[in-house]
Amino acid sequence: MSAGNLPARVGLQLPAWVERGIDRERAYSSDADKVALAIALAGRNVEEATGGPFGAALFGPDDRVVAAGVNVVLPQSTSLAHAENMAYMLAQQALGRPRINLDDQGRPCGPYTLATSAQPCCQCYGATVWAGIDRLLIGASADDVHELTEFDEGPLPADWPGELARRGIEVVRDIARDQAREVFVAYARAGGRRY
Amino acid sequence: MSAGNLPARVGLQLPAWVERGIDRERAYSSDADKVALAIALAGRNVEEATGGPFGAALFGPDDRVVAAGVNVVLPQSTSLAHAENMAYMLAQQALGRPRINLDDQGRPCGPYTLATSAQPCCQCYGATVWAGIDRLLIGASADDVHELTEFDEGPLPADWPGELARRGIEVVRDIARDQAREVFVAYARAGGRRY
Repeated sequence: MSAGNLPARVGLQLPAWVERGIDRERAYSSDADKVALAIALAGRNVEEATGGPFGAALFGPDDRVVAAGVNVVLPQSTSLAHAENMAYMLAQQALGRPRINLDDQGRPCGPYTLATSAQPCCQCYGATVWAGIDRLLIGASADDVHELTEFDEGPLPADWPGELARRGIEVVRDIARDQAREVFVAYARAGGRRY
Repeated sequence: MSAGNLPARVGLQLPAWVERGIDRERAYSSDADKVALAIALAGRNVEEATGGPFGAALFGPDDRVVAAGVNVVLPQSTSLAHAENMAYMLAQQALGRPRINLDDQGRPCGPYTLATSAQPCCQCYGATVWAGIDRLLIGASADDVHELTEFDEGPLPADWPGELARRGIEVVRDIARDQAREVFVAYARAGGRRY
């Protein structure tokens, strides 16, 4: 019936350095520890020139890393490949369930925490609603992103943190914001492409 | 430094029947033709029990199918694997660029049109902002989804169509809405799982 094959498979991968940069045995106990890792991933992604200046890490109930993500939109030719989305998809496929904080019987098994170097854009915001996390920790603000980069966060609901809170997701903002901002400065200095 | 490997690769695939159900040589000329295909994909996904009751198809400037998607959240253990997102990612990787309607030199090369069987949820809405489409054609409304299923569309900006229009994306709603609603009725009758 068809002439030529339709694309049927999506493949996405992280840069190889991510694996080497993370100690899976370490408990990242505090919120600051968690966001510091997300910011470090963002910074390294700029240094290695492997994508945009954004990083994220997903932590389990034991404060250990379940999955990490960086922006790989350009190298992977995929607009969905933002840092937060990569962490969600990698965690879900590793855990074998589409909602991270519900076990095979649909029982809560969290808390799971996503730390991100900057406020999620509209796309990662929407993904956050369904991903199954209990806490969202944010470094740089949308204002920082707008001030220091040419990235656009896109349209969000007026009360975006409240909408998450009503769905059981706690939002904590402005964690290590100065360090998070430095990544954008480094990216601009490196002449980084916008996407 | 690490103990155990972090997940580094995401893999997503469509059900095999999608490939067989689409004629790549056909020009789907009208908006109604395009949405009818998206609805047919949604219906077949219910019949085949390969995912949720949602389908989408992406069309190029010649009105032919570039990529198709269905909801494969449960079988692929990935909350991002909604129909629209699958179509976007498959198209982008097939075309080799993260913004569908910009060519390698960043020049507009559309129009590209996404037809979806139902109004995009918050996640696919956000992805639509960055995917690089020129037109968005919608079958069932959010009200239909809420009335006939237990799916939640999630929080959207108050003027979500206007926000897309301001970014150059034309939105056309209520195309073949009755047929689109029938898929939800069939899904409920089949006792389909919510996700």
